Order: sequence, then structure tokens, then C-alpha cells
Amino acid sequence: MLHLQSESTDRWLAQVDQNLADVLIDHAHCERKAASTAMNLMNSYTDNRALCVEMTRIIQEELEHYHLVLDVLDQRGIPFRRLASGHYGRELNALVRPSEPERAIDRLLVASLIEARSCERFRRLAEHVRDRDPGLADFYAGLFESEARHHTTYVKLAEQYAERDVVVARLDQLSRDEADIIAKGSELARMHS
Amino acid sequence: MLHLQSESTDRWLAQVDQNLADVLIDHAHCERKAASTAMNLMNSYTDNRALCVEMTRIIQEELEHYHLVLDVLDQRGIPFRRLASGHYGRELNALVRPSEPERAIDRLLVASLIEARSCERFRRLAEHVRDRDPGLADFYAGLFESEARHHTTYVKLAEQYAERDVVVARLDQLSRDEADIIAKGSELARMHS
Repeated sequence: MLHLQSESTDRWLAQVDQNLADVLIDHAHCERKAASTAMNLMNSYTDNRALCVEMTRIIQEELEHYHLVLDVLDQRGIPFRRLASGHYGRELNALVRPSEPERAIDRLLVASLIEARSCERFRRLAEHVRDRDPGLADFYAGLFESEARHHTTYVKLAEQYAERDVVVARLDQLSRDEADIIAKGSELARMHS
Repeated sequence: MLHLQSESTDRWLAQVDQNLADVLIDHAHCERKAASTAMNLMNSYTDNRALCVEMTRIIQEELEHYHLVLDVLDQRGIPFRRLASGHYGRELNALVRPSEPERAIDRLLVASLIEARSCERFRRLAEHVRDRDPGLADFYAGLFESEARHHTTYVKLAEQYAERDVVVARLDQLSRDEADIIAKGSELARMHS
């Protein structure tokens, strides 16, 4: 359903265990960036009414999540701060083809895959910390459904710009690329490292 | 209270009367752009918690207004479409100084002046059409208070980046520039023409 071609590994979970504060701070930034991605899509495809309606919904939800994560940071006494970005978003966005309508399709599918990976990792993280940190487990268990919904929304919107089989083939290619990018890992402990 | 140094003229009201559809379409774009401005400020000053909290509120309200304007367009059978932008926002943004913290102050004050001018014009428009189009008058009368609130929010946030008298002096200068820019008018009938 999430169109991902890999599962997150124990390497990432070990990195989270050792750097939970950084991963939580990065998560707040991820929610802000997700809202910003939706805003940028709305600005680019401003005459696509269906897209704009969905983007406003996604912006609203991502900003709500952003505040929820900031609350979690407050509860844990973790000061929010700037973080250097990992390679994940940058490398995925570099795959976007420059000409329309391919550009629209790719921007929407890249957004769909980031949502999918977040969903997969939120669920994985919730299970991983269930016994020793049930509050955090509940927090992530409460978030992953909306990420799955956003994934589906983005894929459906891409189907406005090409036939379904063309979109599915491109999503298949991009999800292979996504799996390669996430498999590289990063020394920076991040939600998508 | 709005720190504006001019009142909108009958020239603009005559232009609105002759091109109401374009001005309403432009208004929807203005709400989207206002949300985008707040999102960009949040992305730039991401470690300023007070700013980010206020920006998420403003984004939410601007996007609500965007949908309200789209509803007005639907009710009046006016198809939403892209529009060439007027000179107003571009010329105002060109006044932003490049180095921090001046850049932050100017971006916030320019945003505050755009909100102020919108507030002044919404009120003027509401009065102008009161007798012949009470539905539209009520619509604009219902919007101008939030624009005034956003104006105040942006000015207060600018005071985080400099002493109050420095901010007031800069606002005074920028509002003179704003009055010059709005006085030029534009052949394109827009909310800020």
C-alpha cells in the first residue's frame, strides 16, 4: 500500500536509540518541511483546484503535527534547534524531471514516498520503543495513519497528470531509487537517515 | 493603528467596479501568497519559537480565507484562474535589506504593511458596495479584523530583532514607500492596484 521497496533496518533503530533527541528535533523540522512542500505545490499548480484543496488539508495537518512534536520536545526537556539536513530529501528531489507534466508527477510522487517512508518509520519506531517508552510509542502510533493517507493523496493527484499505468511505473522506479537512498544511511541521526 | 500613510482612492474603487471578477480572483491568490509568506518566514527563522507559533496561526487563517474567497467565486459563477501579478508585492519586497537582522525586520514589516493595506481596502470595499451588494459587503466586513490582527502580530515580531524605536522608524520609512507604491496604481485591476 505504501509502495516502498525496503523496510527500515536495525541500523537505523540503533542510531535512533543513541540519538533520540536529534531524531525528535529532526522530526519537528520534517513536519515543517512537509507543510512547506505542500505550500510550494499549491503555489506551482495554483489553478488545479483539487490539488490546492488537498494541499491546504495537508499543510494544516503537518503544522498540527509540528506543534505536537514541539510539545514532546518540551515534555522531555529537549531544546528545539536548527539541524543540518540529511541527504535524503535533497537526493530524492534531485530525481524530479525538469519539464511539465513530468515535473508535477515527480514532485507529487517524491512527496508521496517521503510520506510513505515516514509512515513506515513511525510504525517501526512505535514498536521498537513500546516496552520501555510507551508514551513515545503511543505518539508515533497516533501519527502514522495520517502519513499513509498523505501518501495516497499524493499518488492520486499525480494521476491527474498522466495515465495510471504511467504513474505506477514512475512510482515503481522512484521507490527503487528511494530504497537505494535510504539504504546509504547517514552519520547524522535523522528521521530519514 | 495600521501605520498606513495614505487612504485608498476612488480611482481604485472605480477599477474594482469595472473589474470585480479579476479583483476577487486576485484576492484568492493574495490569501495563498500571504500563507506562503508566513511559511517562508517560518522556514527562515525556524529556531524562533514565538515567530513559528504565530506563523502557523497566520497560515491557517489565510488558507481558510483562501477557501472562503473560492466559495464567493463559485457563488458568483466566476472561474478561478491564474493572474499576472501586479507590481505591489514585488516592489515592496525589493525594499528588504539583505543582511540580518535587518532582513528579518524588513520581511516582517513588509508583511505587516501588506496586511494593513488589505485591511484598509477590505473595509473601504465593504462600505463602497454596502447598498448594492450587501453579501459582498458582509464578506469583506468579516475579513478585515483578522488582517489588522496579522499586521500587529508582524510588527510585534519585528521588535524581537531590534529596539522598538528602531522598528518604528523603519516602519515609518517603509509605510511612506508603501504609500508611493500603491499611489502609482496599475492597469491590472488587483486587490493592491
